Amino acid sequence: MSESLPLARRANIVGLGLIGGSLAKALTARHWIVSGVDTDVRRVSRARESGLISSDTLDPQAFITFVAVPVLGVPSAVTQALESTTGFVTDVASVKGGVASGVDHPRFVGGHPMAGSEQDGLDGADADLFEGTVWVLTPTVTTSDETFAAVAGVASELGAEVVVLGPTRHDEVVAVISHVPHLVAATLMNLADQRAEEHTAMLRLAAGGFRDMTRIAAGHPAIWLDICAQNRPAIVGVLDDLLRELQITRDIVDREQGDGLEALLTSARRARTNLPSRVTNAELMAEVRVPIPDRPGAAAEVFGLAADLGVNISDFEVFHSAEGGRGVLIAIIDAAQSDLFRGGLLARGFRPGIRALA
Amino acid sequence: MSESLPLARRANIVGLGLIGGSLAKALTARHWIVSGVDTDVRRVSRARESGLISSDTLDPQAFITFVAVPVLGVPSAVTQALESTTGFVTDVASVKGGVASGVDHPRFVGGHPMAGSEQDGLDGADADLFEGTVWVLTPTVTTSDETFAAVAGVASELGAEVVVLGPTRHDEVVAVISHVPHLVAATLMNLADQRAEEHTAMLRLAAGGFRDMTRIAAGHPAIWLDICAQNRPAIVGVLDDLLRELQITRDIVDREQGDGLEALLTSARRARTNLPSRVTNAELMAEVRVPIPDRPGAAAEVFGLAADLGVNISDFEVFHSAEGGRGVLIAIIDAAQSDLFRGGLLARGFRPGIRALA
Repeated sequence: MSESLPLARRANIVGLGLIGGSLAKALTARHWIVSGVDTDVRRVSRARESGLISSDTLDPQAFITFVAVPVLGVPSAVTQALESTTGFVTDVASVKGGVASGVDHPRFVGGHPMAGSEQDGLDGADADLFEGTVWVLTPTVTTSDETFAAVAGVASELGAEVVVLGPTRHDEVVAVISHVPHLVAATLMNLADQRAEEHTAMLRLAAGGFRDMTRIAAGHPAIWLDICAQNRPAIVGVLDDLLRELQITRDIVDREQGDGLEALLTSARRARTNLPSRVTNAELMAEVRVPIPDRPGAAAEVFGLAADLGVNISDFEVFHSAEGGRGVLIAIIDAAQSDLFRGGLLARGFRPGIRALA
Repeated sequence: MSESLPLARRANIVGLGLIGGSLAKALTARHWIVSGVDTDVRRVSRARESGLISSDTLDPQAFITFVAVPVLGVPSAVTQALESTTGFVTDVASVKGGVASGVDHPRFVGGHPMAGSEQDGLDGADADLFEGTVWVLTPTVTTSDETFAAVAGVASELGAEVVVLGPTRHDEVVAVISHVPHLVAATLMNLADQRAEEHTAMLRLAAGGFRDMTRIAAGHPAIWLDICAQNRPAIVGVLDDLLRELQITRDIVDREQGDGLEALLTSARRARTNLPSRVTNAELMAEVRVPIPDRPGAAAEVFGLAADLGVNISDFEVFHSAEGGRGVLIAIIDAAQSDLFRGGLLARGFRPGIRALA
């Protein structure tokens, strides 16, 4: 182990997949000196050839080492990085409890940039991958303040918003908002597909609402096997809660408890409507609601008009009714352009509603 | 009851909400003579003033009468229409079993245009509401061939695609692809919201996948109370199936049955990927896949470029990874424009993949 002091703006990346490669690209673009290693030697040479890394051996004086290997290999790779470097160490795995219990060191803090999977390839590496994303850090009582400040500083430099959670809390939160929804979408899709053998018209009738709900089930299964293995207790706990709540919903419908059903749907509607927007400068933005028929081309037409008028749409969602038919496109635009956009939409026969965001 | 024969291209609309108003508008635009009635006299006068209907009394010789009142009032309104007219009668309610068992007449066939809710207002009436939508007809053994052919003909004239299902089958199918997904989205949203009181960061972390899954929970609760009351047996049956399947998913995760989990996720992925596209001229279309970061503006940028280049996007979905971060925008465009669009995307730093649809 080197006893020399860590040097500013030097970084190691262990594991050159999508996240590791994107870290290398983003740091190199910001004039960091980046060393990268990977068990796949072809990845390492491609990373060198494309200028993502300047060295393929671990830099013992690197200010920071990112461990970006698949979740099962994280504890040993982190331990090795702590032994062979004098700088700070973090990882990017999407489950944090196992790493926290396997590693206990003042120079380590766990991390989870919510920006894709560590199992995707180097080809997708993107210097802007972390821009505007949430980067969770999971300090423990052992983590030193210097370590936390250093890693948070780099995450911010890469454009991410740092959110702090304990490792166990992190794992519970992602079970609720990511892991269990994925399993529910897959289960629901399979249920509809089994019934479709009997009702061949079934999937022809599937409208926007069903498409929205099952969309994540189209994702690659590979990463979920590791996630479910690593985050098993939290996922099973949340699935048990969901099974209990869904049983209550079922009983409310079965017993025709109209008041209970209305309360359930009303609170869900309020919660979904209040889901924090991803827009940062809310005071300068306006929200445009445009009713649109649920047919090919209708939503795209609104985007085409925005482009014709030079109106910048910074975020959007298309809300379908579950029955199909009429949907609502909600777009976030610069408040200064709302009159222009409104006029254009009216001229094309749309009926927009506009309100300030802040 | 009038004994005079029904006259071609004359229609009655009973109930002037969104669906009834849109039917009136669509038929009037196609030179039908339309009579309309509603228990709300202000609606009737507004419909007259805006030229949607030319008479506010039921036409006894109308070729077809559409009953577009809320689902609970359908059987009596249909019976009354059969007694006071000599033409064909259909309804537009989103649950069909109750109507079928309450009405048994050769001149009646149940229908469900999947194009919005009968409880929305006349203000949203749109002559193109049925263009490109699925219109389910639910004939029984009593329904005459003439009735079925007549109603199917009008639905086609309004641009809808007619799909035939028995009333009970219809109700099972919509329970699977519409009613139960809505209840699951609401239950999941409430679960996350309850946990959010404890984990304030929870909803800040909710990425594209969670947003997609819970989006339909933002809908108005009102219509769901009627739907759940009317389609109770089918909804409870499907919820029981889902509870059973979800319990199996939970046990697979709990028992770390990797093979079972992989099979579950792989079949869901295949089913979702094969979900029929809503595009009709598949042989002339191409599918463009554009990886995009999950940040405000990224997907909108692709639409802006399409508009700049005059590329017509006829349908699209944005697939997010459940973890947030990298998503994929899949757009359906004219095959003839694929080289142009590909070039423009490459020039702006996107990495599109394009394949023919047929």
